Amino acid sequence: MATVPFSSDPEQDPRVRAVFDDIRATRKTDFINNMWRALAFDPALLERTWGEVKALMATPTALDPLTKEMIYIAVSVANSCGYCVHSHTAAAKAKGMTAEQHAELLAIVSLAAKTNHLATGLQVPVDEVFDLGRGA
Amino acid sequence: MATVPFSSDPEQDPRVRAVFDDIRATRKTDFINNMWRALAFDPALLERTWGEVKALMATPTALDPLTKEMIYIAVSVANSCGYCVHSHTAAAKAKGMTAEQHAELLAIVSLAAKTNHLATGLQVPVDEVFDLGRGA
Amino acid sequence: MATVPFSSDPEQDPRVRAVFDDIRATRKTDFINNMWRALAFDPALLERTWGEVKALMATPTALDPLTKEMIYIAVSVANSCGYCVHSHTAAAKAKGMTAEQHAELLAIVSLAAKTNHLATGLQVPVDEVFDLGRGA
Amino acid sequence: MATVPFSSDPEQDPRVRAVFDDIRATRKTDFINNMWRALAFDPALLERTWGEVKALMATPTALDPLTKEMIYIAVSVANSCGYCVHSHTAAAKAKGMTAEQHAELLAIVSLAAKTNHLATGLQVPVDEVFDLGRGA
Amino acid sequence: MATVPFSSDPEQDPRVRAVFDDIRATRKTDFINNMWRALAFDPALLERTWGEVKALMATPTALDPLTKEMIYIAVSVANSCGYCVHSHTAAAKAKGMTAEQHAELLAIVSLAAKTNHLATGLQVPVDEVFDLGRGA
Amino acid sequence: MATVPFSSDPEQDPRVRAVFDDIRATRKTDFINNMWRALAFDPALLERTWGEVKALMATPTALDPLTKEMIYIAVSVANSCGYCVHSHTAAAKAKGMTAEQHAELLAIVSLAAKTNHLATGLQVPVDEVFDLGRGA
Repeated sequence: MATVPFSSDPEQDPRVRAVFDDIRATRKTDFINNMWRALAFDPALLERTWGEVKALMATPTALDPLTKEMIYIAVSVANSCGYCVHSHTAAAKAKGMTAEQHAELLAIVSLAAKTNHLATGLQVPVDEVFDLGRGA
Repeated sequence: MATVPFSSDPEQDPRVRAVFDDIRATRKTDFINNMWRALAFDPALLERTWGEVKALMATPTALDPLTKEMIYIAVSVANSCGYCVHSHTAAAKAKGMTAEQHAELLAIVSLAAKTNHLATGLQVPVDEVFDLGRGA
Repeated sequence: MATVPFSSDPEQDPRVRAVFDDIRATRKTDFINNMWRALAFDPALLERTWGEVKALMATPTALDPLTKEMIYIAVSVANSCGYCVHSHTAAAKAKGMTAEQHAELLAIVSLAAKTNHLATGLQVPVDEVFDLGRGA
Repeated sequence: MATVPFSSDPEQDPRVRAVFDDIRATRKTDFINNMWRALAFDPALLERTWGEVKALMATPTALDPLTKEMIYIAVSVANSCGYCVHSHTAAAKAKGMTAEQHAELLAIVSLAAKTNHLATGLQVPVDEVFDLGRGA
Repeated sequence: MATVPFSSDPEQDPRVRAVFDDIRATRKTDFINNMWRALAFDPALLERTWGEVKALMATPTALDPLTKEMIYIAVSVANSCGYCVHSHTAAAKAKGMTAEQHAELLAIVSLAAKTNHLATGLQVPVDEVFDLGRGA
Repeated sequence: MATVPFSSDPEQDPRVRAVFDDIRATRKTDFINNMWRALAFDPALLERTWGEVKALMATPTALDPLTKEMIYIAVSVANSCGYCVHSHTAAAKAKGMTAEQHAELLAIVSLAAKTNHLATGLQVPVDEVFDLGRGA
């Protein structure tokens, strides 16, 4: 189920085709996952979203590719996005995440959630030394 | 402000003192941040929470210490825990996180939040190939 | 799947029947969606919930009907309620939401999520001029 | 800080005065906390909100008053509402919540958050036997 | 679907078998739900998670078993964990939760969510009297 | 407090100056709020974020400016971003949001939160007719 229609031939639209071609070339695969097929209902939104994902996640930057995927998974879990957890876990495995690293990622994510809820339940006041914005 | 009383001398309780001593020895600092002072209202909860944090975050494991802190920050941001964002950002900086890495971490966290909301708004069906639990 | 039993004939209960009849009359359709069928397990909860939704969403108020549905969708996405995203997107389309408006709604929701996470990650202090509650 | 102006004399409005009087009588105290002072900017919203809180939280129902406050705190922590955590923790203590019960509440809330994140990270399929809505 | 492989015979691993045996003995049932089958991909994570759940939820403590399950459900709903809502609702029913109590639990959870969003939208300043951490 | 240093003279960096000048020109005010001052720690992140906000929120599009701000507020409340709730409520008021519209916005946001939690607590199955992605 989805909240937008999935076209049977989204690549009839040349803007969609250009994005899909770039996804295939960037990822070196013919597979286009449903996120991009759904976004094809609005070519401008598809272009902007892919452009942003490509620039940050499929381009060499300060952090290594696997670390970036694990951070992405962490946020997706905390935001309860089932689709995103699936797609980025698959991406992390494709980038070499071992079962041991996966288990440790889940252990950290769930421990963080635990102490997040403890700190919020206790309403712990922020220590002065944590203020890195002095002068603000 | 907090939802529990902060004792002026929590280390009168020997269980609290033992945990605080272990925090000081593990982190090689005399500073005990407010999270632990707040948890001191219940020594058993303090012991269990510190034990868990120490085992995962202050002990060598499969992931390197800075990666672990960045994952912790990512979850804390998504769960809107201000205290946790402050304390783990300070910890990440103490472990060498550069301004460039910090900016990239925030860029990934916020991009993930963006696509999390897009995927949820579109109710994108999960692709069959993402199913890693076949046999379930 | 659901956490409450769905009765095969919930309208045997006159209180359920009265609510269902009012839903049909208000929406000018015979269709009763699953939210109300699930709530029928407790007629009092069904009555109060429908009464509140009807008063705000199915009655002329300060905001126009489509704007109200788009606000409802925005909250439902941020709270990760798949059912609610589906039902209110269908309602918004029934009230005239175009594909262009839908795309823009999703663009705003996801941009807001992005800057929400940035502001939380940065722990930006609130500007004094934003204080609208002076005198508090 | 607040996003609405706080009137220095909100009870000049007779609808606000009636609600504040009912809060005082119901709670047997002269103290009106800031939630109600903020809501006074819109008397209709104030009336409806207080009416709903009173009916469920200040009236004898199936669950006992302290259990109800602890459930309220649990949701408020998970939704990161600092104000609500403070006000309902104060209410729970006024209704007899001991330090031990408070610590256990926080332990359950944070353990639930932990396993919530684990189950979401694992995308655990729901067991057939948990389906209580058969026939739907 | 899941993000980890489900083994067809997870109990070949003696650590998994020991945990599953303890779950069966503790719960007096042969049924092992999918959460534990999924966690079996990492026996250490399985052991720690079950140990923690058993100690808090399957052992007599200050709060009674049904109250504990209802608090667990409340957090799971607020964190949008569908699996957890299903499994803990089933557990609460097994511990005697009536339909009336279930309806009231959902009424409190949803009212709390409502006032959480109101307080956050109003940015209500915390009343001084709610500060239970003076001296901090 | 913030997790990044606030420069006392961020406009010494010509990229920051260019963005701040564009904010001033676009908004026709000399005031630069703290969000942008915080983002100035990384000029590239500042440029991209402002560019995106300007294109969607400060440029004529399919939805009118006030509707866009109200949708932004709705998401910010649900994501518990206090800074964002403050800044976008101020923006909505500057664009003409009346007290009546503000009250109704908060009423819808909080009602949506209520039914989001009800639907999640009930685990309501999505009605077939809501499937707008047939063919997927």
